[in-house]
Amino acid sequence: MQTLTSALTVVDLVASAVFAITGALVASRKQMDIVGFCWLGLVTGIGGGTVRDLLLGLPVFWVREPAYVIVCLAASVAVYFGAHVLGSRYRVLVWLDAIGLALVSVGGAAKGLDAGAGPVNAIVMGVITAALGGIIRDILGQEPSIILRKEIYVTASVAGAICFVAASGLGAPRTAAMMLGFFLTLGVRGGAIVYGWSLPTYRSRPGRTMEEIAARKGQK
Amino acid sequence: MQTLTSALTVVDLVASAVFAITGALVASRKQMDIVGFCWLGLVTGIGGGTVRDLLLGLPVFWVREPAYVIVCLAASVAVYFGAHVLGSRYRVLVWLDAIGLALVSVGGAAKGLDAGAGPVNAIVMGVITAALGGIIRDILGQEPSIILRKEIYVTASVAGAICFVAASGLGAPRTAAMMLGFFLTLGVRGGAIVYGWSLPTYRSRPGRTMEEIAARKGQK
Amino acid sequence: MQTLTSALTVVDLVASAVFAITGALVASRKQMDIVGFCWLGLVTGIGGGTVRDLLLGLPVFWVREPAYVIVCLAASVAVYFGAHVLGSRYRVLVWLDAIGLALVSVGGAAKGLDAGAGPVNAIVMGVITAALGGIIRDILGQEPSIILRKEIYVTASVAGAICFVAASGLGAPRTAAMMLGFFLTLGVRGGAIVYGWSLPTYRSRPGRTMEEIAARKGQK
Repeated sequence: MQTLTSALTVVDLVASAVFAITGALVASRKQMDIVGFCWLGLVTGIGGGTVRDLLLGLPVFWVREPAYVIVCLAASVAVYFGAHVLGSRYRVLVWLDAIGLALVSVGGAAKGLDAGAGPVNAIVMGVITAALGGIIRDILGQEPSIILRKEIYVTASVAGAICFVAASGLGAPRTAAMMLGFFLTLGVRGGAIVYGWSLPTYRSRPGRTMEEIAARKGQK
Repeated sequence: MQTLTSALTVVDLVASAVFAITGALVASRKQMDIVGFCWLGLVTGIGGGTVRDLLLGLPVFWVREPAYVIVCLAASVAVYFGAHVLGSRYRVLVWLDAIGLALVSVGGAAKGLDAGAGPVNAIVMGVITAALGGIIRDILGQEPSIILRKEIYVTASVAGAICFVAASGLGAPRTAAMMLGFFLTLGVRGGAIVYGWSLPTYRSRPGRTMEEIAARKGQK
Repeated sequence: MQTLTSALTVVDLVASAVFAITGALVASRKQMDIVGFCWLGLVTGIGGGTVRDLLLGLPVFWVREPAYVIVCLAASVAVYFGAHVLGSRYRVLVWLDAIGLALVSVGGAAKGLDAGAGPVNAIVMGVITAALGGIIRDILGQEPSIILRKEIYVTASVAGAICFVAASGLGAPRTAAMMLGFFLTLGVRGGAIVYGWSLPTYRSRPGRTMEEIAARKGQK
């Protein structure tokens, strides 16, 4: 139990830092001030796990523990002063986001299992939590939402969470199951980044816009 | 109590399925892949009720019960493979959304009453929950938000929730009060869809944009 | 304890009313109907405090107490019938938002301290809550988000929350510490409104858009 708690704590801490960096990189893309970096870094860093804990009815992980907040703020400040040395902030953003996605997919599913959510819901918990991290960041930073792009993203999270829950169900040790899920998510998302992997999209026509619908109503 | 719980469970289950279909239809309008359908279907299907339960301090209805998630995923997959047979996905979307709105307005108000929220807040609970379902879907799918359109939408939810709470307060049996509120919401929203009903909008001038304000400041 | 609770209740009530007015003013800028005014006023009025209470694991402040909802609805209706007498709704919106920001920054931090969140997290609680009020309003009303503007906004909240927590830690009476934090936030934000104060923004180049990145990939 002690080890388990520690493993989850480390996952939460690293995931918070990684997501905080991606939030701060969005702030740098939008040329915000240092408080904006900290704000976007903090909300992105702790947002996904916060929703997970609220859903599971657990105390929110960072509220009575200052380490997470301090790590997020430190990461954001570091990006503010250090991001200019990066050749491509976008490339770094995408890869760090992939690592965060992999960590949170597995960590969210693990916390779901521990809270008695059952296998299906534990998978859902991992995926919702993982995807919400990036989605909150994109909404707050008014970037195009990551879930509307064609590249595989949520799918990678689904694959890793299923793999972790299945391995756990088959009796694999927690750490082994977590690493399996982590690397599967990272591999699938990494393949999507490097090779542009995508699932077939819905084949039919795209939806008409409200204007087209209004125009068509007018013709009748 | 047993019957009451069952009635609310059925409402939640049907509402989840209906909202999941509307989420998946938005995914089809945006030509997402099958994981995108499931994601948008799931979040839309369970989003409104999730917020309601968090506000009331209740355990979130789907977290320890896989049926809701499975129903949402099944509905999303069905839309992925079946939506092309629909003549107008937009029309189906609008009507299913009306049914979901009616179910959740009444169901949210009922759960509010049961949790001791008092009549005013029970109405608010029904309306917030009902409107949030569609709003979350529109934000995630980056569709124009349903609350900014001129047509009656939130008003229908308000009418149904007031009707249900009033009927309950006057001693009507739960099921009768729920059906009354359901059909009033559906009727008002349906009238808005068919006849374009709207309330008078605010008459004065629209707000200036930030650019106009900046330009005006510059002139002084 | 009695006095403390009352002070926080008054802060919540006034902050709800002030934020509700700013929400209703956004509704007037978007020419919504009266239900739209009430909806946007209500969600803006109670949104920030709702998130604060969920994060702290407390019962949501308005759910079992109708006064907050009634105050928000009354304020929204008053704006609907009275906003046309205002010379510049935008100017009123900005100043009321500053007052709401100041109230909620301090009130959120105070509730955080009382719930045992520790000084760092109490500050974060005040800032998150304060900024979320305006952010929720801007997302729902589809206005340009207040956090992406160059003017000082979140910074004012940070300053006031730090000041309040520091004063409390040094043993100042609660009311004195709250007023100190309130006026510091209001002063900093007011200076930003009047004189256009801003922090230095991130100096490096802005982020490339997705299109530029795609084009560049194509060239390789």
